[in-house]
Amino acid sequence: MHSLAVSIDTKSNDGLLDTPLKVCVVYFQISSGIVADIESTDLVVQRVDETLDRCKRAKRIPKCHLLDLAAAGLPREPQHRRKQQQALLSIFHPHPSRISQYHCIIMANLYKVCIVGSGNWGSAIARIVGSTVTKFDKFDNSVNMYVYEEMVDGRKLSEIINTEHENVKYLPGRKLPENIVAVPDIKEAVRNSNLLIFVVPHQFVDGICNQIKGSLRSDVCGISLIKGFDCRGRGIELISSAISRLLNIEMSVLMGANIAMEVADESFCEATIGCKDRKIGTVWKELFTASYFRTSIVLDPQTVELCGALKNIIAVASGFVMGLCHSDNTRAAMIRLGLIEMIRFITEFYGEARLETYFESCGIADLITTCSMGRNQRVAEAFVSSGKTLAELEKEMLKGQYLQGPLTAMEANKFLQEKNLEKDFPIFTAVYEICYHNRPVKTIIDAMREASTHAKL
Amino acid sequence: MHSLAVSIDTKSNDGLLDTPLKVCVVYFQISSGIVADIESTDLVVQRVDETLDRCKRAKRIPKCHLLDLAAAGLPREPQHRRKQQQALLSIFHPHPSRISQYHCIIMANLYKVCIVGSGNWGSAIARIVGSTVTKFDKFDNSVNMYVYEEMVDGRKLSEIINTEHENVKYLPGRKLPENIVAVPDIKEAVRNSNLLIFVVPHQFVDGICNQIKGSLRSDVCGISLIKGFDCRGRGIELISSAISRLLNIEMSVLMGANIAMEVADESFCEATIGCKDRKIGTVWKELFTASYFRTSIVLDPQTVELCGALKNIIAVASGFVMGLCHSDNTRAAMIRLGLIEMIRFITEFYGEARLETYFESCGIADLITTCSMGRNQRVAEAFVSSGKTLAELEKEMLKGQYLQGPLTAMEANKFLQEKNLEKDFPIFTAVYEICYHNRPVKTIIDAMREASTHAKL
Repeated sequence: MHSLAVSIDTKSNDGLLDTPLKVCVVYFQISSGIVADIESTDLVVQRVDETLDRCKRAKRIPKCHLLDLAAAGLPREPQHRRKQQQALLSIFHPHPSRISQYHCIIMANLYKVCIVGSGNWGSAIARIVGSTVTKFDKFDNSVNMYVYEEMVDGRKLSEIINTEHENVKYLPGRKLPENIVAVPDIKEAVRNSNLLIFVVPHQFVDGICNQIKGSLRSDVCGISLIKGFDCRGRGIELISSAISRLLNIEMSVLMGANIAMEVADESFCEATIGCKDRKIGTVWKELFTASYFRTSIVLDPQTVELCGALKNIIAVASGFVMGLCHSDNTRAAMIRLGLIEMIRFITEFYGEARLETYFESCGIADLITTCSMGRNQRVAEAFVSSGKTLAELEKEMLKGQYLQGPLTAMEANKFLQEKNLEKDFPIFTAVYEICYHNRPVKTIIDAMREASTHAKL
Repeated sequence: MHSLAVSIDTKSNDGLLDTPLKVCVVYFQISSGIVADIESTDLVVQRVDETLDRCKRAKRIPKCHLLDLAAAGLPREPQHRRKQQQALLSIFHPHPSRISQYHCIIMANLYKVCIVGSGNWGSAIARIVGSTVTKFDKFDNSVNMYVYEEMVDGRKLSEIINTEHENVKYLPGRKLPENIVAVPDIKEAVRNSNLLIFVVPHQFVDGICNQIKGSLRSDVCGISLIKGFDCRGRGIELISSAISRLLNIEMSVLMGANIAMEVADESFCEATIGCKDRKIGTVWKELFTASYFRTSIVLDPQTVELCGALKNIIAVASGFVMGLCHSDNTRAAMIRLGLIEMIRFITEFYGEARLETYFESCGIADLITTCSMGRNQRVAEAFVSSGKTLAELEKEMLKGQYLQGPLTAMEANKFLQEKNLEKDFPIFTAVYEICYHNRPVKTIIDAMREASTHAKL
């Protein structure tokens, strides 16, 4: 015999994230799914009815969820929670007309997650999200994952994922939780979801947004795990801003020192959630939590996202340095000077500098990882040692994909040129000119010397 | 025919660093060491006499030095400067009684440098300092280097350095400038110097200070390049504070991402000068400058020095992490979480947090280098993989020297215990307990998880 609390909250009509107004809290007894005390059950139903009436009069939408399960001594594992849900539904059995109504209320207010993307990083994050949704009552237990359909050994990738629970193409050897449902139709994938996790290569963002526009729930919001600017010559637009503009939804971002394979291997790491509203940030934080994956919330989403893009410029610079002299001192100096140029750029671009944000995972930690082993660093180092062009190396080392660092340096350079600030950003400028204007690569050291002279925050 | 400016300044009696009071500036013509214009030379002598009289009446010490050599179109190389000095002396030839007086004034007001220490780092820094003193008029051209005398292949090390200009024992294969003079007697080495660079292993600091006390110029000040606390159970005392206490002199510090061999190889790197007074900081900055070595001045010497000590705790933690999982994500997270614990410790210890200081070379850059390849990181990694004790590894890998990280963790732990703050510093505490109390090394990951939850600045 345990206590179980049911709370019914109401919220105003103008959004998912408003502060709920608590109307009543009722307690009753359950045991293994059978309601033990009919009298108190009747009381629950009566109070629920009263509450719904009050909601109606106040023109508020009722919201019903289980509360304080752990505090009440109930285990939170999914199999037990299912019993609790059955118990809750059984309350309404004496009043059959209300079953679907209440059931619907309970279900409609759960967060339903869709992962838009199923590459390496999307699949690694699916392992975390698939597990988390079963641990919190606020999430629907099943998670959609949009899979761009392709054939793998004569079978559809989505079918393989749904039967073998493994993304054999992009995250081979690591199981996905069974509640991850691969959906090859993007509209179908997002239709009933209200938490969208965007984790596709950035060149697909426009197309996907155009497809799903109009198919979304009204209470939907999103988070972007996509690093980089939109680099197509239209000036700097953050990926999250582009999604927000195309879909008219509130966007957060998740960035950090997260190499997908290491996350999939459950090595401890961290990430930063950048959002405008701490309440939605808290929901994302709950969703992106594992014993090996920790997040923090920062109310400075632009800085968080800009760090994720600009770091690639510094990774290229760091690769040049390592190609030239293989000195850890010099690389550490480049990371420091690069970080200061990032901070000054973001301050210039965004008009605000919160130094604290750079101490988050999205700041120094991601920069360190990217400058130690990312693809920008590797290709740039090969650029020095091989004497080949960047285009040749992209073909050889990245199967023809474009390297983010040089493109980002180009976009950043346009911004600096417009403001006549190129000279004040010697490292950004050097990376751009080395990549696109045949400036000798060894002058990156001159740029460091220059940067060192002006490196004041 | 070139212009050469001579300025005569005066300063008050109470210290080397006071703002000089400019009394007169005279111009005259020289050509290859021969004074060309006797009339203007007479004028110089007359003005010098007047100035000295005024100094005497005002009870001020006169100071005479060459000014604006470069601006006057004169080359600054030592061989040319020697000619200029001869020219200046020749001014006084018509007045022989004044020669020694003026010569003495000119010499006495130069900064004379002594490097106290001749190990790996001391020898690398001697390459920079030996070169710099010949480029600025304010420095005496010859630099003393205290060498703890030892026999190398039957010859005295100091003799080898003075004849072959190479520290064959501690920096083999890299030449020292010829103006570095090895002096095996510490009192003799420091006697006429007023800029002392301390760069000995920290356990020798007490002994050396006790020897030179009483042999120092009254206008002496020092800079410590020694990283670490004094870890002998007397509580935390900074090395610079200990020197300052023992010698009653003003101390600055120089810290940063500086691996001695890489500095000796002239790889570009940076360092941070921490000082209380920007004027003396500027002198140190001039002294520690090379095309490949850049410094910045920070008026926050305690933070600069504490970073140089505390980083070793994080390097040990980082070594544990790499021994356990070889994940770059996890190491980056450790560097970030470790840095935040360092900042919080320094704030607790010192009562002040200037976040900007941590963006200097002494902060993130040094931490990155130390966690990538320092000895603390290497031994700690071997501790995990070999199963040997730290004492065994110190014997094997460090020829019996003690590792700084564990000792620093122990001193830091005493401080935290006294303040009942151990739980708020999970990484510091874990390193201490793993090193000294058989706490299982894999719990370092639990400490990171704990730290991640509280990692707020």
